[in-house]
Amino acid sequence: MTEHQSPDVTPVAVIGLGLMGQALAGAFLGGGAPTTVWNRTASKGDALVAAGARRAGSAREAVEAVGPDGLVVLCLTDYDAVREVLEPLGGVLAGRVLVNLTSGTSAAAREVAELMARTGGAYLDGAIMATPDGIGADDAAVLVSGDPAAWDRYGATLRLLGGGTARIGADHGLAALYEMGVLGLMWGVLNGFLHGAALLGAAGVSAEAFAPVARHGIGTVAGWLTDYARRVDAGDHASPDATLETHLATMDHLVHESEALGVDAELPRFVRELARRAAAAGHGGDEYSVMADVFRGRVGAPS
Amino acid sequence: MTEHQSPDVTPVAVIGLGLMGQALAGAFLGGGAPTTVWNRTASKGDALVAAGARRAGSAREAVEAVGPDGLVVLCLTDYDAVREVLEPLGGVLAGRVLVNLTSGTSAAAREVAELMARTGGAYLDGAIMATPDGIGADDAAVLVSGDPAAWDRYGATLRLLGGGTARIGADHGLAALYEMGVLGLMWGVLNGFLHGAALLGAAGVSAEAFAPVARHGIGTVAGWLTDYARRVDAGDHASPDATLETHLATMDHLVHESEALGVDAELPRFVRELARRAAAAGHGGDEYSVMADVFRGRVGAPS
Ligand SMILES: NC(=O)c1ccc[n+]([C@@H]2O[C@H](COP(=O)([O-])OP(=O)(O)OC[C@H]3O[C@@H](n4cnc5c(N)ncnc54)[C@H](OP(=O)(O)O)[C@@H]3O)[C@@H](O)[C@H]2O)c1
Ligand SMILES: NC(=O)c1ccc[n+]([C@@H]2O[C@H](COP(=O)([O-])OP(=O)(O)OC[C@H]3O[C@@H](n4cnc5c(N)ncnc54)[C@H](OP(=O)(O)O)[C@@H]3O)[C@@H](O)[C@H]2O)c1
Repeated sequence: MTEHQSPDVTPVAVIGLGLMGQALAGAFLGGGAPTTVWNRTASKGDALVAAGARRAGSAREAVEAVGPDGLVVLCLTDYDAVREVLEPLGGVLAGRVLVNLTSGTSAAAREVAELMARTGGAYLDGAIMATPDGIGADDAAVLVSGDPAAWDRYGATLRLLGGGTARIGADHGLAALYEMGVLGLMWGVLNGFLHGAALLGAAGVSAEAFAPVARHGIGTVAGWLTDYARRVDAGDHASPDATLETHLATMDHLVHESEALGVDAELPRFVRELARRAAAAGHGGDEYSVMADVFRGRVGAPS
Repeated sequence: MTEHQSPDVTPVAVIGLGLMGQALAGAFLGGGAPTTVWNRTASKGDALVAAGARRAGSAREAVEAVGPDGLVVLCLTDYDAVREVLEPLGGVLAGRVLVNLTSGTSAAAREVAELMARTGGAYLDGAIMATPDGIGADDAAVLVSGDPAAWDRYGATLRLLGGGTARIGADHGLAALYEMGVLGLMWGVLNGFLHGAALLGAAGVSAEAFAPVARHGIGTVAGWLTDYARRVDAGDHASPDATLETHLATMDHLVHESEALGVDAELPRFVRELARRAAAAGHGGDEYSVMADVFRGRVGAPS
């Protein structure tokens, strides 16, 4: 490697070159980090090697190649794959920092943290808030949780993955928790959009015509989240902008409209059922934010 | 009324002064439209009258007060209220344009359109994409559908309600359909955020800390909708950025995380069940946009 390297960017080993791993390795390389790559199926590293990455013959070789100052990055399908790759490495990781960007639960992340602690290494868990083609952009973010000293040492290198990359706390499970929260939100947006597109499509309106209106609506609702968050944290859902009862009335319209157009009514019925539970528990006059208490099981638990 | 009036702004009668009706009347007044108001409970008009509105003693009086060039705007709880208010008006609406901004189904909107046609008047149905405090702002939108000539005549007056106000088509039911689509999306965003807030809250993270991450995630997903819309319209869900199977794997994580933290797992289980249906029907390798076909009943109908 003769590439120009910024003083606070360190060598990196990227293990796992799927859709995401390739994007990660590309961003490290592009940022001037000497990058060693390994993938079970070697051919997925070809383009990276052509672009200047060094190919390792095994995960162990990749870790050894970047030396004691190097960062080790994992991005695999799931934690079964993570365990399978880490197991044979053993002592090679002593004194090293491992960043794991594989998706999973907070419990799985904490298990790997314990394994690294036993090995005498440090651990950062990360959640990637971007698709592969967004990696490296100013608005891409990797949320990292875990060892503060490891973050101090490798934060600048990790920020090559996206301008919004940040450490969110010492608890190794936090990144996974934030990821789960954002993924749930993602399915909420996608199902909402796709159900609306199905509804409008049944009436002859294209999804293309619906998309800008949908985006405008999403922007409006996103603007409410600060107030909603304040209410959730304070447990105060009084003096609403719109009552849960008003929501329930329009939920009925959506159910009826869906039925009339022969579009799935199960999703809107399920959403209405959740809201009805809160209303039945006496929260019909509250702001919709009270649904957080339903999800916490504090209000209207299912019978 | 001695207020300064722009040449293309017409007199307006606003019938219904609830939270939303008051905001509408305020925006017409503020834009220089001579405004007459009526509400069943008269006191809700006091602030508007103090600001320069004229109070009518009945809905009929309000219609008569604005004269043949005046626009008649309705904003009531629901279509039962709309029918109750319109019935006694009868012939007074002949030759007039009625804009109804009450929420309801497309079928209910079309019924009022027929009633207006029988009366010899014109009808526009509208859906308000804003909360009352957003009315009049540049980014507020009222989507209007129906009579093109009525829109030509009153579009400038209606644009006082929000910079994004636009007519979306001649079918009187369209505005209601778009509103239903956007409302479904709204509940998707809100439930996603509030479920995530419950999950993070159970791990000691405040909703305030989650909100900016959630907003970032929403922005990222909103950026996908153009591609998703193209796929839905083309019925082409191949060559995905992430497969439905990948979504299903992370849906499992969200279910397990919810269970582990004692947070409602019903919502993520329901979302997973919908996706499983598409996978079982052979769409596991497709983009998530294929869910629009599930909602249209074309893929994986429930057994
Ligand atoms: N793609 C996205 O948009 C996105 C966004 C955010 C987070 N993520 C997360 O990033 C991770 C990777 O996603 P991806 O899209 O890159 O998936 P992918 O394209 O399916 O790649 C999976 C990678 O894991 C490797 N692997 C699986 N099992 C293995 C094992 N037992 N031993 C060694 N290697 C193994 C695969 O190696 P082979 O090539 O040999 O099969 C491949 O490199 C996932 O946890 C995903 O949730 C992805
Ligand atoms: N608020 C929002 O954020 C929002 C956003 C978008 C759309 N909308 C839609 O706008 C419409 C009005 O909402 P809102 O928030 O203004 O509701 P609201 O505050 O509850 O006001 C309802 C209005 O309807 C009147 N009304 C009800 N039944 C009536 C009847 N039988 N005869 C005469 N008047 C009757 C009420 O008169 P009284 O004062 O005499 O009861 C009141 O003026 C709804 O369809 C809603 O879905 C609201």
